[in-house]
Parts: sequence; C-alpha cells; structure tokens
Amino acid sequence: MSNDNKTGLTSIAELGEFGLIDHLTAKFTSKQASTVKAIGDDAAILDYNNEQVVVTTDLLLEGIHFNLTYTPLKHLGYKAVAVNLSDVYAMNATPRQITVSIGVSQKMAVEHMDELYEGIALACDRYNVDLIGGDTSASLTGLTISITAMGTAAANKITRRDSAETNNLICVSGDLGGAYMGLQLLEREKEVFQSSGGGQPQLEGYEYILQRQLKPEPREEVVQLLDKLGIQPTSMIDISDGLSSELMHICTKSGKGCKIYQDKLPIDAETSKMAEEFKLEPIIAALNGGEDYELLFTIEAGDFEKLKEEKIISVIGHITEQEEGAYMVSASGQEITLQAQGWNPLEKK
Amino acid sequence: MSNDNKTGLTSIAELGEFGLIDHLTAKFTSKQASTVKAIGDDAAILDYNNEQVVVTTDLLLEGIHFNLTYTPLKHLGYKAVAVNLSDVYAMNATPRQITVSIGVSQKMAVEHMDELYEGIALACDRYNVDLIGGDTSASLTGLTISITAMGTAAANKITRRDSAETNNLICVSGDLGGAYMGLQLLEREKEVFQSSGGGQPQLEGYEYILQRQLKPEPREEVVQLLDKLGIQPTSMIDISDGLSSELMHICTKSGKGCKIYQDKLPIDAETSKMAEEFKLEPIIAALNGGEDYELLFTIEAGDFEKLKEEKIISVIGHITEQEEGAYMVSASGQEITLQAQGWNPLEKK
Repeated sequence: MSNDNKTGLTSIAELGEFGLIDHLTAKFTSKQASTVKAIGDDAAILDYNNEQVVVTTDLLLEGIHFNLTYTPLKHLGYKAVAVNLSDVYAMNATPRQITVSIGVSQKMAVEHMDELYEGIALACDRYNVDLIGGDTSASLTGLTISITAMGTAAANKITRRDSAETNNLICVSGDLGGAYMGLQLLEREKEVFQSSGGGQPQLEGYEYILQRQLKPEPREEVVQLLDKLGIQPTSMIDISDGLSSELMHICTKSGKGCKIYQDKLPIDAETSKMAEEFKLEPIIAALNGGEDYELLFTIEAGDFEKLKEEKIISVIGHITEQEEGAYMVSASGQEITLQAQGWNPLEKK
Repeated sequence: MSNDNKTGLTSIAELGEFGLIDHLTAKFTSKQASTVKAIGDDAAILDYNNEQVVVTTDLLLEGIHFNLTYTPLKHLGYKAVAVNLSDVYAMNATPRQITVSIGVSQKMAVEHMDELYEGIALACDRYNVDLIGGDTSASLTGLTISITAMGTAAANKITRRDSAETNNLICVSGDLGGAYMGLQLLEREKEVFQSSGGGQPQLEGYEYILQRQLKPEPREEVVQLLDKLGIQPTSMIDISDGLSSELMHICTKSGKGCKIYQDKLPIDAETSKMAEEFKLEPIIAALNGGEDYELLFTIEAGDFEKLKEEKIISVIGHITEQEEGAYMVSASGQEITLQAQGWNPLEKK
C-alpha cells in the first residue's frame, strides 16, 4: 500500500471494500469447534449440535444505502430485512431469526419508528422469521439500521460460493438491472421535484422497476424450486452488487473462470425502456447495477434438463478454467472482460 | 401517548428507550420452534438441535456511545466486543462467535481501521471467540460499530432476568461507579485541553477508573466461579446502565420488589476520591453510572455459605414481594426508592 504524502496514512479508497475486508480480517483465525466457515461467503456457517446455522449481517446508513426523500419508511424496514434474508437464501438455507438495531435520528418521532417497524413486521410475517432482539439508540446524525439474520439448513444442502466446477452451468433467477434503473428514476424525479419546487413525480408505467428498488423480495421460491427439482447448486451467491461483481466472487473463490453470453441475460422490458431514456446500455445496468437480490448459482451440466422449462431461471453461461479468464460474449461476438466492483468509500452507492 | 401540538407527532423522548422498545416490539410474536425467548433479556435464547444458543447485539455510534477525542481506537474495538460478551456472560453462557459491522467515517484511513481491529482481535483472543462475519460500508458522518455475539450454554444453566424469587439474595461482582467517574475525568481533561489549547491531561493516580471506562472486561471469571462453587443464579443481568436500572429490570420482569443496603455497595477508593473532586456522592455513581459491566444476580439464600468468602462478589440485599417496592436503605437508615433510567434520546450518554 502506498501512503498519502502529507499524512503518511493510507486512504481506504485505495484498498476498496473487498481489499479492506481482506486486509482487516487476514489475521483472524477460528478457534471454536462450532465455527465451520467464518468470513468470505454470503453468511458464516456454524454447527450447533449437528444443526448447520448460517449467520449474516448488514449495516444500512442514511445517505449511503437509502435516501429518506423518496424511500417510505415502511419500505425501508421491509427492504432492510429482505436483503439479509437474501443472504440466507443464497446459502440454500431457511431464515429463522433476525435481530434489528436502530440508531434513531433526531428528526424521528414515534410514528416514524412505527412505520419502519411495520415494514420489518411485514417482512418477518412474509418470510416466517422471528425478531429476537436488537439495540435502540439515539443517533446524532442519520438513521442507522443494522440487521443480523440466522437460518438453518441440512449440512449437505448448504451452498457456498467457493465450490463451482469447470463446465458447471451458470444460472440466474428473475431479471437484472431493474433495481438500478428504479433508483435512477427516483433520483431524476427527486431533482425535478426539488428544482420545480414541488409537483408530482412522473412514475407511471415504471411500477416494476420502482418495486425492484423499493421493495425487493429475497428469492425464497428459487431455493424451494431447486429443492423440488432435486437440484443441489454447486455454488450460489445473491446479487447485491451487480451480476459482474458477484460472478467474479464465485470465480475468484472457486479458482475458476467463466464465460457468459450477453443475449442470455434476463432484462425486463421496463428496465430496457428506462435505460434507453437515460441513454444507457441496458446490459450495463444488468451487469453492474446493484440491489436486484436475484440468486446467481452454478449447477452440474447434467441438471440442465431438470430446469430448462423454468421461466424463473436463465442459464447464462458456464464455468471455465481460471486461465481462460472471466468474460462476457457480447451480442456482436466481442469478448468483454468482467470486473468486480465493490463499495467505493468516496462515492454514494 | 400525547402528541406534539404542532406536528401531531409523538416525541421519542416521551416514551424513553424501554418504552419505545416495548411499543415497537409488542406486536411481534415468535413463529419458529427454535426461538425459546425473543426480546426482553440480555440476549435471545435459541435452541438448535438441543443446543441452547444465546444471541445479543449492540450498536455503538460516534458522539453517542464514544468520543474519539479521548478514546483510542484500539480500546474502542476492544470495548465494543467486551460489552457484547458481557451480555452473553449475563446469560451464564460461553461466548463463541461475533459479527462486526463498521460504518467507516470519511476521516478514517486504513491505519485507523487497523487500530480498531487490533482491539477487536485482542478481545477475540482474550475471550476465545471467533469473528465470523460483518459488513463494511462508508459512513457520511461518524464511525458506526454494530456487533452481534453468539454463545452457548446447557439449557439448565441459562440464567434469565425474569426468574428472581422472594428472599433470594442480591449479589454484584466487582465494584460500581468506576466507569462513570472515569468518563467524568476524561470529559474534564478534554475541556481543560481544549480551553488551554493543549497541554498534558492530568490522569495520574486514576488508572483504575480510566481502565474501567476505556477497557472494561466482561466478567467471565464470575461465571466460571459460580460454576465452580456449584451455584446456579436464579436471575442475572449485566450492569450497563447502572445498578439501579438493572435491578429494576430484574424486579419488573420477575414481578418482585427489592431491598438493598447502601453500605453494602462495593465502591473502589479511586471512584470515591474522584466523586469527591466532582462534589458528587459516590453512591450516585454506583447506582446510576453506567458501563461497569459487572454482573448483578440473585441466588437462593441457602447458597450464601458457598460464596461469602469470595472477595469478587458482594451480597447487597434481597428480593422482596412486589408490593413492598424497590428501594435502598441509606447509611443513615433512610429508604430511597430505586428508579430505572434508560437512554434519553435528547441527551448524550
């Protein structure tokens, strides 16, 4: 790491999110017999008396992860739970419990907290999880939400991100890029609203991508479908940072390469339409737009027959040897190298 | 709840911390068989394949829970872990794993994060727990730390706060009020430092209370001692908000009253000396000063013989019927009613 000339300190931007996490946690080793897998997947894996327990946690900060100007508090509560459950499903596990800690900003009243908890309760009911604890504190600045989710699965069902094999098929659920285009729409309408000093935002016809951004659903039905079809994915991850980034995680952790095909990527018509309005290639939103919370997984080629008729799942490519690299074949046949994007501490995301 | 006349909204200050938590969580009911006890104790209790797992979480916010002007980052990391482990010990359980989520403030460099994680690693090593996951994000404002700890215990060992019985003896470990007086000292020296434009703070002779504030240790040895002595506490809680508040939790949850004696409360000489400098009654620091992280527990009267020689434990009173109220008998024989204090969202604490 190079140092800043003036302070002698290393900026966090230089390492990036994943580099920072690797750097900080490199020295930690596990001592407890119940710790099966610590840092490095969607969730940690614990073994309590032969019950496999997965644990994942997310921190959401006002101004970084959400903007209260256009995020209703009830939706925010729902989404905060949903994104954690998404990590549990990405382990092929069933969520059981969550804890919720809140730093309450000074402008919030009891009624605001009620709205937030209404959304939390709705998600708990929808996904059958229990709220088991948390911490509530004043915050001098913005609203802070920290959620930890726990789930269980049979040991032979748990799906990690480091176990993809060459020639496995790469699959993705649902469609991609919608949540990102929903966010662009909300940002545009916020600016219009602010510069015009009021007036109704133009959101009609974009209900789907708005819902993708404001009220994402973790893909419980995909996990259930795979179980029903008798398919054990060889690796799995949820798409929170964009397809490209998540696929790179699977490849890097598994020591593999990959080849995906642009014309196989599932993109909804609303996503494409909105992208065109913004003069953006829809494929960029699909590859790098975050927050879709779809599941990205690999299966043995022999399992293809079992799921080829399932509309909810698209086969987008296959795993290759690491030396072959990680790239996407564009519609015109060009090979485009995939890149992992993480959180940039100097930018809002 | 009454409403603010202007906005029609209810201020959170009106409910207070415990009122707000009760209000927000009243509607949540548990659906999972593995949830033994959800909200309302030091930690939730889960049962995975007949292994009892306790889960607790804390959120620490800059400017509310810590002040970086006088808190070294390494100490902060250590303390953040310690306060969570304290909740695990308060269940009479052994901590096993933690997750750590960090919102990184913009002024922080990699070297600052290294210091923070050095403290986290030190606590993990000292208490033999595994760091199994977390989330790292940029924060637009201050440093945010959210930690969740998990531990295990035999089902018949777990100690809740709602199970104290009349005539049980009330015990407390270590001594009280030190962490609070340490904080007062740090605040005073910070002001002196700022108004004098520099100069060394006067901290000599107060190493103990400073350590109580900056590097508290969760009371593992108390849990181990009770086990060695063959004592199963009838209830237990850790002292994070002050003796008075925590004792009221035990009484309220157990449906009991209590009587404690001022001259039985353990107060260190440094704590008394510092209190006198501040023209404060040491007993006030002991009753209402937070962050001591001692264990407060009740035992059957018949167990008194087993621990009466243990210097680390003071018997300070006994549990009564609820109708008799909750009070402290002062040195002069006066009866003073105990009160629960929580977090006040309008005040730093």
